Amino acid sequence: MTHEDFMRRAIALSRAHMEAGHGGPFGAVVVKDGAIVGEGWNEVTSANDPTAHAEVMAIRAAGRNLRTHDLGGAVIYTSCEPCPMCLAAIYWARLKCVYYANGRADAAAIGFDDALLYEEIAAPPEKRSLPMVRLLGGEALEVFDGWTAKSDKKAY
Amino acid sequence: MTHEDFMRRAIALSRAHMEAGHGGPFGAVVVKDGAIVGEGWNEVTSANDPTAHAEVMAIRAAGRNLRTHDLGGAVIYTSCEPCPMCLAAIYWARLKCVYYANGRADAAAIGFDDALLYEEIAAPPEKRSLPMVRLLGGEALEVFDGWTAKSDKKAY
Repeated sequence: MTHEDFMRRAIALSRAHMEAGHGGPFGAVVVKDGAIVGEGWNEVTSANDPTAHAEVMAIRAAGRNLRTHDLGGAVIYTSCEPCPMCLAAIYWARLKCVYYANGRADAAAIGFDDALLYEEIAAPPEKRSLPMVRLLGGEALEVFDGWTAKSDKKAY
Repeated sequence: MTHEDFMRRAIALSRAHMEAGHGGPFGAVVVKDGAIVGEGWNEVTSANDPTAHAEVMAIRAAGRNLRTHDLGGAVIYTSCEPCPMCLAAIYWARLKCVYYANGRADAAAIGFDDALLYEEIAAPPEKRSLPMVRLLGGEALEVFDGWTAKSDKKAY
């Protein structure tokens, strides 16, 4: 399969699940060693899950299928440029390349404007619209010390 | 329950599930109208899910419990300052405040350095370490047009 074949699969998922009423018009596939290992589509409204974006769902599916949280060496084809949540998920999954079809301007034109979110994430905490309040730092630090001391931990 | 009570619950979850080997030392609770509506903890390595951070899992649980993707009016207590993925998820869920205990410097000190990720997300695509390649924009745009034309869509 070619890059275009994989992208057409992502686009086909975006169309089918949008038409079926599962969520917004977004689809994605994770590919490793020339084969699709995970497929996803937007399920925000149907699954009552604000994190159920196509890329996140495709990554979750790939992790389940390959039985690892480390998708190093894999790539993702997504029908639209990822939002900051999905982009960060792509980094955590260690994907090595993102292929995307629609751009952020296309998404903004149909009401999905990720630009504000990119600005908020990039801003220092005190400049964000979302208040962030620190408390009980000392008590939580004891758990971090426990992690450091844990001899059988599975680091990642 | 006070702010400290909710945070102590988040810290207790971080400790219990870290000790049980479910993942890193992170816990979170989503609270609405004075009650916990979702709890989460890091399950990255045990669930083979790179997106299974405490905040994401708490948001997913809250959405399931309240049967909505819109957690507007709710807040989150997390045992550590959120990474960019979790922060973006918090925005998508429309939470109105983040209470956190450990800070990003504490996390970096035990090997969870989110700083690079914050830099990558903030950078323009061409400056990122992750390659992003556009293809088939025209074909995907047809699906966006379909979304615009869809009369029974559930916008979000």
